[in-house]
Amino acid sequence: MRLLFLGDVVGRAGRDAILARMKDIRARLSPDFVVLNGENAAHGFGLTPKVCDEFFAAGVDVVTLGNHAWDHREILPYIDSEPRLLRALNFPPGTPGKGSGVYALARGRRVAVIQVMGRLFMDPLDCPFAALERELTRLRMGPGGVDAIIVDVHAEASSEKMALGHVLDGRVSLVVGTHSHIPTADAQILPGGTAYLTDAGMCGDYDSVIGMKKGPAIHKFVRKVPGERLSPSEGPGTICGVMIETDDRSGQAVRVAPLRLGPRLQECWPG
Amino acid sequence: MRLLFLGDVVGRAGRDAILARMKDIRARLSPDFVVLNGENAAHGFGLTPKVCDEFFAAGVDVVTLGNHAWDHREILPYIDSEPRLLRALNFPPGTPGKGSGVYALARGRRVAVIQVMGRLFMDPLDCPFAALERELTRLRMGPGGVDAIIVDVHAEASSEKMALGHVLDGRVSLVVGTHSHIPTADAQILPGGTAYLTDAGMCGDYDSVIGMKKGPAIHKFVRKVPGERLSPSEGPGTICGVMIETDDRSGQAVRVAPLRLGPRLQECWPG
Amino acid sequence: MRLLFLGDVVGRAGRDAILARMKDIRARLSPDFVVLNGENAAHGFGLTPKVCDEFFAAGVDVVTLGNHAWDHREILPYIDSEPRLLRALNFPPGTPGKGSGVYALARGRRVAVIQVMGRLFMDPLDCPFAALERELTRLRMGPGGVDAIIVDVHAEASSEKMALGHVLDGRVSLVVGTHSHIPTADAQILPGGTAYLTDAGMCGDYDSVIGMKKGPAIHKFVRKVPGERLSPSEGPGTICGVMIETDDRSGQAVRVAPLRLGPRLQECWPG
Amino acid sequence: MRLLFLGDVVGRAGRDAILARMKDIRARLSPDFVVLNGENAAHGFGLTPKVCDEFFAAGVDVVTLGNHAWDHREILPYIDSEPRLLRALNFPPGTPGKGSGVYALARGRRVAVIQVMGRLFMDPLDCPFAALERELTRLRMGPGGVDAIIVDVHAEASSEKMALGHVLDGRVSLVVGTHSHIPTADAQILPGGTAYLTDAGMCGDYDSVIGMKKGPAIHKFVRKVPGERLSPSEGPGTICGVMIETDDRSGQAVRVAPLRLGPRLQECWPG
Ligand SMILES: [Fe+2]
Ligand SMILES: [Fe+2]
Ligand SMILES: [Fe+2]
Ligand SMILES: [Fe+2]
Ligand SMILES: [Fe+2]
Ligand SMILES: [Fe+2]
Ligand SMILES: [Fe+2]
Ligand SMILES: [Fe+2]
Repeated sequence: MRLLFLGDVVGRAGRDAILARMKDIRARLSPDFVVLNGENAAHGFGLTPKVCDEFFAAGVDVVTLGNHAWDHREILPYIDSEPRLLRALNFPPGTPGKGSGVYALARGRRVAVIQVMGRLFMDPLDCPFAALERELTRLRMGPGGVDAIIVDVHAEASSEKMALGHVLDGRVSLVVGTHSHIPTADAQILPGGTAYLTDAGMCGDYDSVIGMKKGPAIHKFVRKVPGERLSPSEGPGTICGVMIETDDRSGQAVRVAPLRLGPRLQECWPG
Repeated sequence: MRLLFLGDVVGRAGRDAILARMKDIRARLSPDFVVLNGENAAHGFGLTPKVCDEFFAAGVDVVTLGNHAWDHREILPYIDSEPRLLRALNFPPGTPGKGSGVYALARGRRVAVIQVMGRLFMDPLDCPFAALERELTRLRMGPGGVDAIIVDVHAEASSEKMALGHVLDGRVSLVVGTHSHIPTADAQILPGGTAYLTDAGMCGDYDSVIGMKKGPAIHKFVRKVPGERLSPSEGPGTICGVMIETDDRSGQAVRVAPLRLGPRLQECWPG
Repeated sequence: MRLLFLGDVVGRAGRDAILARMKDIRARLSPDFVVLNGENAAHGFGLTPKVCDEFFAAGVDVVTLGNHAWDHREILPYIDSEPRLLRALNFPPGTPGKGSGVYALARGRRVAVIQVMGRLFMDPLDCPFAALERELTRLRMGPGGVDAIIVDVHAEASSEKMALGHVLDGRVSLVVGTHSHIPTADAQILPGGTAYLTDAGMCGDYDSVIGMKKGPAIHKFVRKVPGERLSPSEGPGTICGVMIETDDRSGQAVRVAPLRLGPRLQECWPG
Repeated sequence: MRLLFLGDVVGRAGRDAILARMKDIRARLSPDFVVLNGENAAHGFGLTPKVCDEFFAAGVDVVTLGNHAWDHREILPYIDSEPRLLRALNFPPGTPGKGSGVYALARGRRVAVIQVMGRLFMDPLDCPFAALERELTRLRMGPGGVDAIIVDVHAEASSEKMALGHVLDGRVSLVVGTHSHIPTADAQILPGGTAYLTDAGMCGDYDSVIGMKKGPAIHKFVRKVPGERLSPSEGPGTICGVMIETDDRSGQAVRVAPLRLGPRLQECWPG
């Protein structure tokens, strides 16, 4: 199977790039399943039902969130009625929505998606390692189980992402990081057969500060008085993500390749 | 001019890779100047005079440090007598060593190197933005000034690195991040002519947790009792860095290209 | 001299307590000078010119701020025209307002007030230790200098406050912490003659979470979805602070005594 | 019942004070039960079996730990065989030791002790609020349950301690904070009948930086090169803690009073 994951969409620049090119991406890569991180899609912070629906209409199969999950409150009732939208698994019990889902594809195939959030340099949450262990006792890949598992690790520290990658190695198809908004160049297949990438990068304007307008973002670091509110940079967006191919029987990855489409970064189609 | 920057060397795996391949790298790329981050070179934490001298002997021109600068105390007297070793510029006044240096090359050319440390999710330090502004009033690039300036931004947050990149755009040749130990895939020339890369990545074993052995690193995240001490992973090392070419008159970058040599990551020679 | 310092005023409960009892406090304790921390006075976050003027009218001589200094932007132009309002000294150069002031009293006496902010578990700022050293080269206590110096250390970590206390010991009259909103019971005169208290405590409703309504504050810790906005608790306020007496010649403290007036906490008048 | 809680014992100064005065304290106050936080008792960091046994021999009934629980590894096997030693309840499953215990007193009475750790500005752990809720479904106070419950909240932020206090109000006898090493002056009985104190303070030398020698502790804040290792200050120790009296039927507190014995701080015997 071919599975495509696209990183944090930031504001209109990211949305426009996705909506304009998803058809072309689907045509050229023929992915069986597309996951996209939408935690910054609406004005740079959070997601609205309307924007989420646009992603689904454009051909995205599942949308994941992150630490900005609830920046727009209207997503709270929506997520409980939309199984294709996921928030982190290690939010406390009682949090609206779910942290994992199993999705049916053509010909009886099933793909699972899980999101966890890291804790290093982030807000206190339940342990992502423990949450994944619990989830993976009921969710298995390969014969009798699902055909593939994608795990979005929304985390700040590269060390925590890599540690999670190794812990999951052999048990899932792809571990891909989000949240740093910068694509990493370390795509690899780990020894146990899991594809790994520390960060997918964002879908947005890369002539910016992680997708936000430069002036206000720099002001925040340099001056300690309030400045202009942070808002998404409005230059042309670049799409960043990663594509994997899995073995039909084991669900393990046999190929991992970055995707980068758009200005500023070196363009990169999975050959 | 061709300038090469190599990211955090982690332990023996990283050192061996550098010592084994530097000759080949110099032969193939003919860099005019090579900078290497050595903050994790000795046992994964810090640097010793002996290891630093090995880098110089192998053809490295300048070594930079980071938050692990002083993990081996013997580096403190050494740095005061070795102008080719730099620590962060925004350490407090009175800190041994220097945060920037100007280095003479053949044919009267001069290259400056500066390191700053970020503050987001890191220990308190003086403002890196202010420190750079002060330094750049006395250090100018182009006619009458130095021929190129390389800035190593040792920082955790991608946002702080990008903000520093834009603040320096047009005034230095290269802004390159270190510390995350993962190479990023966002090499670009910013609008003002400065080459930028969020992180150079480490030189070390990528079948690891940012260069450290997997078991103890995972233990630290999952269990909250002391485990085996962190130590560098001992598999074969991969070299990660970035090469730029500068305009001889302005010092600005005309080309930026990642370098990745070794197992696990997609190999990449600056074409 | 008798100097009185009152901790962070939180919302209406704190303001009402101050306005209602300041006259009585002045009558009973006859302080020569009163300093009050006002960073949470307006709706629990920040200060407005109107509220600040009320404090001055009620008999407060100097108001200090903290990390919430600029939560109401109208304070930015006001602080530049009001020398009795201070923000932290170690804000970056160019920040509106000042971090220290010298104030003239009857009979030629002069009192200096300084505020610094800590950095441990707080936003990045310039070093408070270095900022104080610079300030104290031009500001001396005792013959030829000012008659007393009060330092408000707005900081999270008790260790950083105590370290600053010892560094200043003998050079200022009082080092008093703010920001934790809880009065500490460690008032002492340090070996060099400086009165010290880790935290003055807040002026506000103590049947709360550091002055804020219990429900929304608990929600923030337990649930990770947005809840009701934090706002000041509205029960009767308790005034917390500390009074010192200084030696007229040296400026050093000869007495330090806590002040606590109001419900819930054990009431305590400096005997 | 009379229950006494003593804060973090720091090094020899704290231990000597406890061992020298416990007999006198027991004689004068006649507590039914004594709990002591021992996380800094051995050389300032951690606890050894030998030191723990000395506390028991001196008349301490239960010892609690904190973030320094495992600084001496020999405590790991010891804690599994010593039910009177507790570590935080919200350590991950599988951690040696226990986070709560029920202890039998004369005349059939039983006292429960629980420790939790906060998460704000501390290492990632499971949610202390959730852990307490689970524990309190099986541990009830009053008729049919235990006679009293003491909760040690080992946390940095005053807000998290107060939030936990209110959440537990009415369900336990005492919520007392540790970890800041400074006694707070906010002892109160919350509306539901639970005695509350934000921090018990340390048992140690208060002419120090939270119990540690001043020089090295200040060095750590000011300079960013390694200095002398932190070690406990060796002046005479002051004992800090809190005593409560509970209603025999409900277990709720009817009285709360601080205890402070020794030099530097204002001495305070529960009347
Ligand atoms: Fe995020
Ligand atoms: Fe994001
Ligand atoms: Fe580093
Ligand atoms: Fe490093
Ligand atoms: Fe504050
Ligand atoms: Fe405050
Ligand atoms: Fe602690
Ligand atoms: Fe402690």
